[in-house]
Amino acid sequence: MATLVVGSVAYDTIETPFGKAERILGGSASYISVAASFFGPVRLVAVVGSDFGEQQFAAFRGRPIDLDGLERADGQTFHWQGKYSSDLNSRETIRTDLNVFERFRPKIPASYRRSEHVFLGNIDPTLQREVLDQVERPRLVACDTMNFWISGQPEALRKTLARVDTLLINDGEARELSGEWNLVKAARAIRAMGPRTLIVKKGEHGVLMFLEDGTFAAPAYPLEEVFDPTGAGDTFAGGFMGYLDSCGRLDDESLRRAVVMGSTLASFAVEAFGLDRLLRLTRPEIDARFSLFKRLTHFEAL
Amino acid sequence: MATLVVGSVAYDTIETPFGKAERILGGSASYISVAASFFGPVRLVAVVGSDFGEQQFAAFRGRPIDLDGLERADGQTFHWQGKYSSDLNSRETIRTDLNVFERFRPKIPASYRRSEHVFLGNIDPTLQREVLDQVERPRLVACDTMNFWISGQPEALRKTLARVDTLLINDGEARELSGEWNLVKAARAIRAMGPRTLIVKKGEHGVLMFLEDGTFAAPAYPLEEVFDPTGAGDTFAGGFMGYLDSCGRLDDESLRRAVVMGSTLASFAVEAFGLDRLLRLTRPEIDARFSLFKRLTHFEAL
Repeated sequence: MATLVVGSVAYDTIETPFGKAERILGGSASYISVAASFFGPVRLVAVVGSDFGEQQFAAFRGRPIDLDGLERADGQTFHWQGKYSSDLNSRETIRTDLNVFERFRPKIPASYRRSEHVFLGNIDPTLQREVLDQVERPRLVACDTMNFWISGQPEALRKTLARVDTLLINDGEARELSGEWNLVKAARAIRAMGPRTLIVKKGEHGVLMFLEDGTFAAPAYPLEEVFDPTGAGDTFAGGFMGYLDSCGRLDDESLRRAVVMGSTLASFAVEAFGLDRLLRLTRPEIDARFSLFKRLTHFEAL
Repeated sequence: MATLVVGSVAYDTIETPFGKAERILGGSASYISVAASFFGPVRLVAVVGSDFGEQQFAAFRGRPIDLDGLERADGQTFHWQGKYSSDLNSRETIRTDLNVFERFRPKIPASYRRSEHVFLGNIDPTLQREVLDQVERPRLVACDTMNFWISGQPEALRKTLARVDTLLINDGEARELSGEWNLVKAARAIRAMGPRTLIVKKGEHGVLMFLEDGTFAAPAYPLEEVFDPTGAGDTFAGGFMGYLDSCGRLDDESLRRAVVMGSTLASFAVEAFGLDRLLRLTRPEIDARFSLFKRLTHFEAL
């Protein structure tokens, strides 16, 4: 099987209390693809500029990440610059240069059209729908979005959500999208818009997944050192999608394990700047931390 | 066995977006005692004024709550008035009338001195220590505190913590007490002050327990309707202590189940004003929700 990932590939300039990293590889699709590639083949759809160099491509090479859908356009690559607060719990966007990403219209190569699993990264909901128009009946369509589209493109977003199986957003976005503060009520309202499964990411407080038949809660792994939270949510999505692709099932138990796998990958991502930790991560390390999650949450029935 | 509970018994006036309740029974020791009484005998130590009526006593009667240590002093009972924000996530104290609680010095009746489990509610740390001076080698001493004592009585609090097995505080208090933002680092610093076990309460985000041999994370139960968060943390403490008293063990597995039992009780407490829900709660309801917690957090190993 394979996971099709559509999103941004970018240069990030990141400032945290621990230092600054300039123009390192970032973007949602980069994190999602690298995280998912630990589990199976990934098909990347994104755009970069002519300034995107061999060094950046190197991050994807040597992994099962198909780059046929990585368009190279004239101009500069998307660049984002952000600065984190001293507690890493909030961040300020210093600068967003959309560059070639501004005119990105995802073109799905013929070789990608039969992808079983599709992840629509956080882009214009109309473009997300254009992706779905170009693929053949995937088993799973998952999707991310953000406040910018929730408030700016509500109609387009509704049309996209009607075609999505699983929505992954953060708690603030779930509240804005539903107009409900209470997350249980928010989940009911959002699931009525289309997605059978809603995953609400709460950062250091973990994840809530609302399913057809119940709710699953997973904590974030309690880390002593967090260096850079950038990409944690995207890495979660990548681990989630990759695990589902590798296990081949979409039942309740598989979705639960996929959430923990997403949390596992995310817990590594924040241990170093950008993609650094993911790029030197190994499958045995992943499996060991998944087991720690099991122990972290374990208790016996009465 | 039995659990000795020291703390406040009070009148609360509570305003939430859903209504106002005037001068209803409250106070940390009330919530803790009622919650713990589902599991075994409780010995209450607190003070009330001459205005404390038969109706209030009724809440404790018919439960295994020993009132020999409930002192009746001349004057008015402690009264607290608070108002919650529209999302229930913050509250403002409108009024605190300490009244007879201002001069409270816990006197432990002879019949209480061999209590195996002692919970020191959130009172002056010097008074907490005076309680310990009056009891004979309990198996477990657990304790709560708050910012007021952390900043106002740091030396006295340190002396108390050196004699405490388990500290239950919220995340903000853990950060203030340790001077560490990161909760893993905060836990290490606090455990070095005495408590072998630290339980950090994060409200709607659940609980982290830091043990000798690891960490346990439990979510809060996702509720669709929260009417009144007053006493949720105290109810957690009561469920935690009561369960440990009933199971008779203090090993890692028992502590984990006790945390889930505390979370279970707290999830009921917030469903109605004050103690209302706890006072009509039944043991089968408790056990059923404990099972829902098991399902809420369940995932299979890889």
